[in-house]
Amino acid sequence: MTQVDLDLAGSLFAQLDRATRQGRGIVRDSYGDGEQAAHDIMRAAGEAIGLEISVDAIGNLIMTLPGQDRLAPRILIGSHLDSVPQGGNFDGAAGVVAGICALSALRQSGFVPGYDIGVMGIRAEESSWFDVSYLGSEGAFGLLDPACLAVRRSDNGRTLQETLAARGFDPTAISERRRLLDPANVRAYLELHIEQGPRLVAEGLPAAVVTGIRGCKRFRSARCMGEYGHSGALPRHLRHDAVAATIAFLHHMEGVWLRTEEQGADLLVTHGELYTDRAVHAPSKVAGETRFVIDLRSLSMDVMNSVAVEALRAAEEIGRAYRVKFDLGPQTDSPPALMDPRLRSCLMGLLERPLEMPSGAGHDAAVFAELGIPSAMIFVRNDHGSHNPEEAMNLEDFAVGTRALIGLLQHFPL
Amino acid sequence: MTQVDLDLAGSLFAQLDRATRQGRGIVRDSYGDGEQAAHDIMRAAGEAIGLEISVDAIGNLIMTLPGQDRLAPRILIGSHLDSVPQGGNFDGAAGVVAGICALSALRQSGFVPGYDIGVMGIRAEESSWFDVSYLGSEGAFGLLDPACLAVRRSDNGRTLQETLAARGFDPTAISERRRLLDPANVRAYLELHIEQGPRLVAEGLPAAVVTGIRGCKRFRSARCMGEYGHSGALPRHLRHDAVAATIAFLHHMEGVWLRTEEQGADLLVTHGELYTDRAVHAPSKVAGETRFVIDLRSLSMDVMNSVAVEALRAAEEIGRAYRVKFDLGPQTDSPPALMDPRLRSCLMGLLERPLEMPSGAGHDAAVFAELGIPSAMIFVRNDHGSHNPEEAMNLEDFAVGTRALIGLLQHFPL
Repeated sequence: MTQVDLDLAGSLFAQLDRATRQGRGIVRDSYGDGEQAAHDIMRAAGEAIGLEISVDAIGNLIMTLPGQDRLAPRILIGSHLDSVPQGGNFDGAAGVVAGICALSALRQSGFVPGYDIGVMGIRAEESSWFDVSYLGSEGAFGLLDPACLAVRRSDNGRTLQETLAARGFDPTAISERRRLLDPANVRAYLELHIEQGPRLVAEGLPAAVVTGIRGCKRFRSARCMGEYGHSGALPRHLRHDAVAATIAFLHHMEGVWLRTEEQGADLLVTHGELYTDRAVHAPSKVAGETRFVIDLRSLSMDVMNSVAVEALRAAEEIGRAYRVKFDLGPQTDSPPALMDPRLRSCLMGLLERPLEMPSGAGHDAAVFAELGIPSAMIFVRNDHGSHNPEEAMNLEDFAVGTRALIGLLQHFPL
Repeated sequence: MTQVDLDLAGSLFAQLDRATRQGRGIVRDSYGDGEQAAHDIMRAAGEAIGLEISVDAIGNLIMTLPGQDRLAPRILIGSHLDSVPQGGNFDGAAGVVAGICALSALRQSGFVPGYDIGVMGIRAEESSWFDVSYLGSEGAFGLLDPACLAVRRSDNGRTLQETLAARGFDPTAISERRRLLDPANVRAYLELHIEQGPRLVAEGLPAAVVTGIRGCKRFRSARCMGEYGHSGALPRHLRHDAVAATIAFLHHMEGVWLRTEEQGADLLVTHGELYTDRAVHAPSKVAGETRFVIDLRSLSMDVMNSVAVEALRAAEEIGRAYRVKFDLGPQTDSPPALMDPRLRSCLMGLLERPLEMPSGAGHDAAVFAELGIPSAMIFVRNDHGSHNPEEAMNLEDFAVGTRALIGLLQHFPL
C-alpha cells in the first residue's frame, strides 16, 4: 500500500498552527487573514509538489494533478480551511492536507490518473463569521442567495460583499449566481474530516467511513402554556402545570426515539434548551409556561417526518390530559445527504477494521451530494470533540484515513 | 341557626377596601399605614359592638367578649390584617371580620360564653414586607428569633426594630423573647380564611373544613450535571445528556406522586423552576446542565421524608443510567400542622354540604397548632386565587363559613 508522507502532513499542520493560533485556540476567520494564511500555506505546498494552481472568483483554491484526459469529469478532494473562533487545528484543514498528501503520494508512485484529480481548499464553511454555512461550496455552484452579500461579519460588521472585494474576489459571481464549477464536470467529491463526536475514541478505531450526513428537523421555539398557581394549594387534577406536561411530553419523545432505534432506523432526539420563565417562575409556584427545543437528526427524512407527526399528535393528546396547550411552533428542515454506496463500499474494503457511521454535523460534502455528485467521506478519530482548542487528532490515525483515500483513488470504481 | 349580619360584614369589607386600595390592588403593608388602617377599622367595629379592646406590645389587636369565668382559658378567633403588595381585600381580613360578626351575633342572641372569646387581628403574617412570616403570631408567643429585628422592609429599607418603635410598639418584647400570650391560656384557635386554591369553585361548594396545613420539604437548588456535546454527532449511548436524565428523573417523581396518592396519602409534587443554562445551551447542543426545584407538600412529614429518600435514591440510579451526576442540594423543611379532630368533626356537622380539604398555604393557625393549641380552620370559596387584586369572595359564602364558626362557638366541644 502506498505510504503517506507524515513529515509533509506534520509540517503542514505545524505551519497552520503557527500561522493561525491566537492565544489558546485557532482563528481562521472566514475570508479573513486567518483563513487566507491557511490558503497560502496549502497553495505553497501544492506548488511544491507540482500541482496546477487555480483560484475561483470567490477564493476557492483548486490544486490539480493532471490526468490523461483533461476534459473528462474530475475527482475533487476537498474540505474547508476556515475555523470557528477559538477552534482547533484539524476541523476542515485535515481534509485539505489529506488531499495534498494523497496527490503527493500518487505523483511519487508514478501513478497517472485517467482524469484530473483536484484538491479543493474551500472557503468559509463555518457559519460563525457570516451566519451562512457553505459560502465557498454553494458559491462555487452558483447556489447562494445573493442577499447573503449583505450579511455582516459577526466581529467587524463588514458585509460579505465588502469583505470579498477587499480580498480581491468578485462578488458579482454571487449576485449573478454564476456557476464557477459545473456539477457535470465533477466525477466525485471526497472529503476526509475529523470525527466531531466521541464514537471512534469509544470504539478504539482510527477511522471510519461516513454513511451520510444527517439531516435536521427542528422545532426551535416549542412552548407549553399552562397556568401559574400555588404549589401547595392546587391539587393535581386542577393544575395546568406546564412543567409536568412538558416532562410527560419529552418522556414520550424519548420512548419514540427508543422504539425508532429498535426498528433499526437512524435517529437522534435532543432538547438542548428547556426552561421555565425566570421572570415569573418560583419554587412555590406551579409553572405556567415552558419553552424548549426539539432537534431531530437522521439520515432519513422519512424518519424525521414521521417522528415530527408523532410529536404533534402526542403534544395534542398530552396537552389535553394535562389541561395545557402545546405549541411546537414552526419546523425547519435541512435534508440528509447520503454518501455514494459504491464509494462507501470501496472505502470499507480499504480499512483494516472497517466501521461505518453517520455524520451528525454538516460538511461541504452535503452540498456536492445534494447536486447528485457521488460523494464520500472518511472520518478520522479525534478526541475532545471539535470547534474547540482541544481538538486532538493523531497523525497515525490521519495516515490510516489518508491511505484509504489514496487506495480509493488508485482503484476508483466510478 | 343564628344569622350573620351581612350588612355589618359588607360595610367592614367596604371600609377596608376604601382605606387600603392603591390603584388596582390592596396594600396593607405589614406594620405600615395600610395594615394600621385595617386595625383601626376593626377596632372601631369591636368597640361599636361592645367588645373589650386590648393591643399587645407588638401591635396585635384583641377584642374580647367576656365569659362567665374570666380566668378560664379562652377561645381566640383570628387572622392577619396585612396583605401582600397589590393583594386582594379578603386574604386575612375575612377571618377578623368573621370573628367580629360571630361575636356580634352571639351578643345579640344573648349568648354568654363560659369563658372569654377573643377576636385577634394579627400583625404581619405575610413575608412580602419583612421576609419573615408570622411576625404577629410567633411574636405573641415569644417565638421570634431576635435577629429578625434587623430585617429591613423590602420597600423603604427600615428595620423591623425601627418600624415597631415608630409605630409606638415595643421591640424589647421580641429581643427578650417575651410571651405576650400564654398557650396554656388559649383553649382553642379558630381561623376563617378564603381558599387560596380553586377547589371549592371546582366543587361548587361555599365552604370547607381544613384538615391541616401542609408542610413543605423543598430541594431549592437541585442540579443535574452532564456534558455539553453536538446534538447530531453524539449517539445516545455516548451522551451525558442532563436534560434527558432530568426528564427521566422528574417523570419518575411523577410516578412516585401517583403511587403515593393511590395509597391515600396527601402529597403534592411541584417543579416550578426547571432550566438549562441560557449562557451555554443551544438548539444543536446536548445539554450539559439543568437546574430545578423539587417542592413537596403534605400533611404528613413521614410521607415527605419517604418521598425525599426515594428522590435521592432515584437520582443516584438515573444518574448512573444516563452517565450524569445529580446533586439535589440542601433540603429545607417546614412541618405540617394538623387541625384538631374534634373541632374538625364538629365543624363538618355544621356544614350543609360538608367537605374537608388540606390547606396548601401557611396560616397563623399553624403557629397555634404547633404549640399544641387545638386549632381549626374554615375555608371560604374564593375565585381567582389569592395574593392578587382579583380575589373574589361572595358574601353569601362568607356567611356559610361564619355560621359554622358561630355554631362551633355555641356548641364548643372542648
